[in-house]
Amino acid sequence: VVDGVLEALRTDPTLHVVLVGPERVAEDGLAACPEPLRTRVSVAPAGQVVGMEERPVWAVRAKAGATVRVAMETLRDAAAEAVVTAGSTGAAVAAAHVVLGSLPGVHRPALAAVIPAAAGPVVLLDVGATPDPTAEVLVQHASLGVAYARVVLAVGAPRLGLLSTGAEQGRGDALRRRLDERLAALADASRGAFTYGGLVEGQHVPLGGVADVVLTDGFTGNVLLKGMEGVVTLVREATTEAAGAGAPAVPAGPRAAMLLGVPGTVVVGHGAGRAADVAACVARAAAAVRDGEHQRFGEEFRALTRAPGDPTPTRGRPDIREVR
Amino acid sequence: VVDGVLEALRTDPTLHVVLVGPERVAEDGLAACPEPLRTRVSVAPAGQVVGMEERPVWAVRAKAGATVRVAMETLRDAAAEAVVTAGSTGAAVAAAHVVLGSLPGVHRPALAAVIPAAAGPVVLLDVGATPDPTAEVLVQHASLGVAYARVVLAVGAPRLGLLSTGAEQGRGDALRRRLDERLAALADASRGAFTYGGLVEGQHVPLGGVADVVLTDGFTGNVLLKGMEGVVTLVREATTEAAGAGAPAVPAGPRAAMLLGVPGTVVVGHGAGRAADVAACVARAAAAVRDGEHQRFGEEFRALTRAPGDPTPTRGRPDIREVR
Repeated sequence: VVDGVLEALRTDPTLHVVLVGPERVAEDGLAACPEPLRTRVSVAPAGQVVGMEERPVWAVRAKAGATVRVAMETLRDAAAEAVVTAGSTGAAVAAAHVVLGSLPGVHRPALAAVIPAAAGPVVLLDVGATPDPTAEVLVQHASLGVAYARVVLAVGAPRLGLLSTGAEQGRGDALRRRLDERLAALADASRGAFTYGGLVEGQHVPLGGVADVVLTDGFTGNVLLKGMEGVVTLVREATTEAAGAGAPAVPAGPRAAMLLGVPGTVVVGHGAGRAADVAACVARAAAAVRDGEHQRFGEEFRALTRAPGDPTPTRGRPDIREVR
Repeated sequence: VVDGVLEALRTDPTLHVVLVGPERVAEDGLAACPEPLRTRVSVAPAGQVVGMEERPVWAVRAKAGATVRVAMETLRDAAAEAVVTAGSTGAAVAAAHVVLGSLPGVHRPALAAVIPAAAGPVVLLDVGATPDPTAEVLVQHASLGVAYARVVLAVGAPRLGLLSTGAEQGRGDALRRRLDERLAALADASRGAFTYGGLVEGQHVPLGGVADVVLTDGFTGNVLLKGMEGVVTLVREATTEAAGAGAPAVPAGPRAAMLLGVPGTVVVGHGAGRAADVAACVARAAAAVRDGEHQRFGEEFRALTRAPGDPTPTRGRPDIREVR
């Protein structure tokens, strides 16, 4: 993590980083900083760890000094403008919920990854924040995904697709059948902000061209993302062995996923978590802050979810405060 | 389909094929056969089609002349030793259920694909037969997958893994949490026939090395399989463009999946369904019949699922008859 932070600081000369973690580890990290970078690094000590085997929500509630919880507090208290975590997704989601709360109209957050598909980027969500969503929650995630695509893909009217086992209506499981009509109605009510193209299949995520936003539950999305990455790893190794330096570029998977539905910029690192991955996550968070992404996202989301006839909301940054 | 059948007939000189379908299409297919092959092709006319938009179970029950239903009847009546279908998976599963019934102890069938993973083949199931399984059904599918791996992978004690969003105990959704302990108990009771290695993640399917059998629900398995194939398609196109004839071989996905839990050999074609894919499915079915795979599979499955203390079952081919 520290190596990744140093890489990010070198690349981005106006970046400041707060290292959150056990005091000795953070101080060692600070000590590893070359002098010119050190002025842009501070330390927030946090000694408790949420173990991979613990139930995240219980652990985060019980441990006031948990690293990821303290990190979310720096965001809530405006000591930082974004959080980057390369730890357990479940712990990050739980800490964001406990410390930051959620945006109005969002019962559970979603983790969104931008897939570099062949026919253009695709927002895939949820890739693991909410493994057991209800239909209601998935409808909220649809609006989160569309708002995010309108900001980061700069697509005027994104095409939403619902991931299923076939493209024909009625395919999939009971959850997908309950969603299909509701998503069509949501698109109709969006006054052209997005269109709903119906069901899409697994191959449409890496190939693209069918939908700009692909909606699924956090269980399936997580398995799909990791499965696609596994194939990329496999092919990367095969092509490097076979062709050496002349190997064709195999597209990398997304290294950073954005937690949507919480009031603040939270980037969840994904994959093996080497230094370069951490640096990419930090750069992604910094770019989001500089571009005012979270504010624009909030405006898009409110516009999508306000009832017809509601007054246009006043522009403004969503509050960062404890909302349950 | 007809081109694929011709290819299979040319490759396999003792293969006989019954073409099931609308009379004119089947007769045209027969007419397309060169004279020496024609003696090994017969036609079973079936005029009704299960549309992609129809609910498969209702359609198959309502249409006695549905192609896939007539195909299953040729198997039930011993006019064929295996069925190959490249149509709707849902219709194939429904027709197998209506016409053939299911093996004792199996409430819902599973579709198994053998993934050519980097570290050795992996049986992935269910890839789409049962999108909404209960925990009880998934425990049955675990035994189906282990029995299949013992036959087709020739692994003495396959390692079973449960697909989830993380490898640590407790990860995943409510269904996975209900299963983890039951699968451990199943392995303990199997007297060494297989081991249960706990949770595995998406990347472990293409990379292999962690489990020989990866168990999941038919919704997730279908999305994962198609997603991985999408990446393979993508990379295949990229490498062919970049490197021409010198492109490294990108592993192909499985073309044929085996329907497990029904009394008979049913191969479900998968993917784009070009002639070569159909030929591969026919070849897979023929190989399964010649190797007595279904009989050996049935013995393995019965041994795994009989209660401790039950007498060793007599050897024999599982009955092909209507069982509800």
